[in-house]
Amino acid sequence: MKWWGWGDPGRRLDLPATAVAALREELGAEPGDAAEPVALAEISLPEPRPVPEPVRVAAGEVLDGEEDRLRRAAGRSYPDLVRLRSGRLEHAPDAVLRPPNINAVEAVLGSCEAAGVAVVPYGGGTSVVGGLDALRDGHEAVVSLDLGYLRSVDLDARSLTARLGPGLSGPDAEAALAARGATLGHFPQSFEQATIGGFAATRSAGQASSGYGRFDELVTAIELCAPVGRLRTREIPHTAAGPSLRELVLGSEGTIGVITEVSCRVRPAPDVRTYEGWMAEDFEAGREIVRDLAQRHEAPDVLRLSNEEETWVTLELAGTEGLQKRALDAYLSLRHRKGGCLIICGWEGERKSVGRRRSLARSRLRLGGAVTLGASAGSSWDRNRYGGPYLRDELINLGVLVETLETAHTWRRLDELYSAVGAALRGALGEPSIVMCHVSHAYADGASLYFTFLTRARRGEELEQWREAKTAACEAIVAAEGTITHHHAVGRDHAPYMRAEIGELGLEALRAVKERLDPAGIMNPGKLMPRDG
Amino acid sequence: MKWWGWGDPGRRLDLPATAVAALREELGAEPGDAAEPVALAEISLPEPRPVPEPVRVAAGEVLDGEEDRLRRAAGRSYPDLVRLRSGRLEHAPDAVLRPPNINAVEAVLGSCEAAGVAVVPYGGGTSVVGGLDALRDGHEAVVSLDLGYLRSVDLDARSLTARLGPGLSGPDAEAALAARGATLGHFPQSFEQATIGGFAATRSAGQASSGYGRFDELVTAIELCAPVGRLRTREIPHTAAGPSLRELVLGSEGTIGVITEVSCRVRPAPDVRTYEGWMAEDFEAGREIVRDLAQRHEAPDVLRLSNEEETWVTLELAGTEGLQKRALDAYLSLRHRKGGCLIICGWEGERKSVGRRRSLARSRLRLGGAVTLGASAGSSWDRNRYGGPYLRDELINLGVLVETLETAHTWRRLDELYSAVGAALRGALGEPSIVMCHVSHAYADGASLYFTFLTRARRGEELEQWREAKTAACEAIVAAEGTITHHHAVGRDHAPYMRAEIGELGLEALRAVKERLDPAGIMNPGKLMPRDG
Repeated sequence: MKWWGWGDPGRRLDLPATAVAALREELGAEPGDAAEPVALAEISLPEPRPVPEPVRVAAGEVLDGEEDRLRRAAGRSYPDLVRLRSGRLEHAPDAVLRPPNINAVEAVLGSCEAAGVAVVPYGGGTSVVGGLDALRDGHEAVVSLDLGYLRSVDLDARSLTARLGPGLSGPDAEAALAARGATLGHFPQSFEQATIGGFAATRSAGQASSGYGRFDELVTAIELCAPVGRLRTREIPHTAAGPSLRELVLGSEGTIGVITEVSCRVRPAPDVRTYEGWMAEDFEAGREIVRDLAQRHEAPDVLRLSNEEETWVTLELAGTEGLQKRALDAYLSLRHRKGGCLIICGWEGERKSVGRRRSLARSRLRLGGAVTLGASAGSSWDRNRYGGPYLRDELINLGVLVETLETAHTWRRLDELYSAVGAALRGALGEPSIVMCHVSHAYADGASLYFTFLTRARRGEELEQWREAKTAACEAIVAAEGTITHHHAVGRDHAPYMRAEIGELGLEALRAVKERLDPAGIMNPGKLMPRDG
Repeated sequence: MKWWGWGDPGRRLDLPATAVAALREELGAEPGDAAEPVALAEISLPEPRPVPEPVRVAAGEVLDGEEDRLRRAAGRSYPDLVRLRSGRLEHAPDAVLRPPNINAVEAVLGSCEAAGVAVVPYGGGTSVVGGLDALRDGHEAVVSLDLGYLRSVDLDARSLTARLGPGLSGPDAEAALAARGATLGHFPQSFEQATIGGFAATRSAGQASSGYGRFDELVTAIELCAPVGRLRTREIPHTAAGPSLRELVLGSEGTIGVITEVSCRVRPAPDVRTYEGWMAEDFEAGREIVRDLAQRHEAPDVLRLSNEEETWVTLELAGTEGLQKRALDAYLSLRHRKGGCLIICGWEGERKSVGRRRSLARSRLRLGGAVTLGASAGSSWDRNRYGGPYLRDELINLGVLVETLETAHTWRRLDELYSAVGAALRGALGEPSIVMCHVSHAYADGASLYFTFLTRARRGEELEQWREAKTAACEAIVAAEGTITHHHAVGRDHAPYMRAEIGELGLEALRAVKERLDPAGIMNPGKLMPRDG
């Protein structure tokens, strides 16, 4: 991964010149706004504190190099990227530990607790909520615990489950399962970099989670190494034996221990994968189609609805101009449609089942007034499905502030939430700016809203500018009683809103567990819970 | 409800004389074994301790009568029934409190905490695991907190959710929803008596949970009144904001507080409800059909497979003898089938969807070698779906020990678990006895096993006899690493097995929450957690 951004450093995403021009015009940005990251040599990290010898011994492998520390010093939120690109890093781990197995993880935690060393578990480094910030929090030192060696795969083909090591990346896990004819079916945008442990620790949701289930729904059993010992839930399809400890470990974001193994439901590798695009009349019409599909339990495995702004940007970025654009316009006007909102539908699985389910959903789409754009719009989305973070790097290079945030609500209150967050973002960003939104996770009772917002970055003040927009959006979410996060997790950025989300007694319950499992408070300090208590 | 058994005292289930004869023969039971419960006047409860005035004031309504206390002194497990019928009750609440609303519940808990009074939350009184035992546990007194007045229903038709009061019984909730065209779809065998609060507190699963989802899957938000305050989770379709507090309250069995409101997903009331019977070659063949349906995500909304013993008893009890029996035998032998295992399939919903899903499942049943018994076998099951506990009363009247227990495991280990528990029960019960089993909840990764066992009761030693069988089964479950309960919950009976189920650190995590939310330890003492720590 690029130390300053996303993915393979050699892979650049070339934006169509027309798209660059259109975005600049829309955002009032100038060619002179463009800015590249500083050189690696210009980065200076905080001076490392010594990591005690027993901790080093327990870990087996310790990396002390400046670049090793840098590469685990930040996640991949916009403020992370701003800090990395500018070389101004407030925090970095004092060292990186790479334990070879679960017993070594246990030994590391014991020695860190004894030595008063804070621990930040590290998987793929893709947090977009400050989940990796190496906060010492009064401890002697802070280490990054890289789980990259915990990569076991153990498939139970009869039960369609697999025990997976937390250090497996999305592609690694899929490749190992594919060799046995199975798939996990978990494809978040961070898929290429993120890990199984991270998926579990943050309650990840993927692009095909409508079909396969969110990651928390895939997990059948989980193992946690806490500083005071190991917790493992039974490998069973369901239990009524008390409160769910699996659901207590899922979403714990490294604050009570390290997730060292995850058992997941898998599926037979699909015979067929098919994606297609549709155009709804407007966002409201599209939303009603999505609600109808979800409430009938006939939603495609992938189901995404973009608002007008996101539809426009998507078509611009796809280079849908010139001949293609004219063809699309002609096609839509033939159907008395001007613009509209893009819907992406995808089905995966056994051929007959896909055919049946696709035909059901198509009827609903047509009944809702959507017109088909065919398979090319679907495969275009499929080709670019992990492209967002690459695109973001290019936009930042152009001097654009670009960030995403997400929430969810019941159908009854979704529109109120959509309007409130949109207005808050537009208000904080000022004009010109673009506030895009899509619905990507639909349920019978409600849906998620995923916002992407762009504005011209104020050079040197990007963090303040980001903070204003983020705060405005979060406050709007809280006021509308939506959730502060549908699948990005809490980390450091959302921690101040947890009191509103779960209340004082909810915080107390989590604190009680944390204090019992991590009495020295070494596990990922400053994340998940508000700092004031 | 009968004070000594199940349901309407006026409603007796008449067993076919042939069935009584066949069961007596099979179990070596004599007509002289028959025994009726003692008269109500013969019951004597432990002398009540005084309930402090502030507690009485906070509650509003207090019932002190002997029968009021008796009716909330026990659940409906076999040992509960033995104790009730014999008039030998070790425990009873000192009084019954009936708060009129949530604020009064909060006030009651505050006053109980201050006065050192233990609280046993009471819904429908249907626990089969000792969840209602009024254990004082060193406190000044113990009260039953009857939630019968908390019966609000607030439907959100757009989001297909409803806020429900914990005191609503199954039929009450369904009637209120039906008036608005909706259904909760939660139909456990205890449906007629059990309540919304109980469903949530015990992670109930219903007969149609394959289709509608288990109760824990229906809950979108929950409110808990704990002695130290109130906790309420957001009413949202999903969140990644940390560990799930909803999943911490679900299954808490009154040990951390009282569930005072539950928001649930509902569905449109079904256009069609259709049930049918099939006969699989044997239990193994039936199990493979069920696994196939579950793993293809094509399971009917109701899917139950009985083993050979349960199939035999079911047919006997249905009065399937004489002409009917000969017709069935002839039918099966035409298909070169002798005996076999009964499968009940049911579909509910919109007509077209039911037709489509039924046709898919039927193909799978046929491919798996099952032969159809048609709609009459299905409607016979449907008619008797809540009849189990009535039947049990009649069997106990005949002098038969009859109890149920359940577990679950992955498909890979289900057969091992099935054999181990069956052998343990047969070993403990000795000959003659009948050990029946069915699979009623199937998942892609595994299934539940529900055992019903019958033997001739040893008059006066029923509790010891029950304890031997229960202990043998539980130990077999633990040894096979199944779960100690799939949907009956933990209560007092399974508490000793929780250490095996969730480990010492799991217990510690739950204890930490309990101590924070209920520092005086007044909430439902002796349930859920083992007594030794």
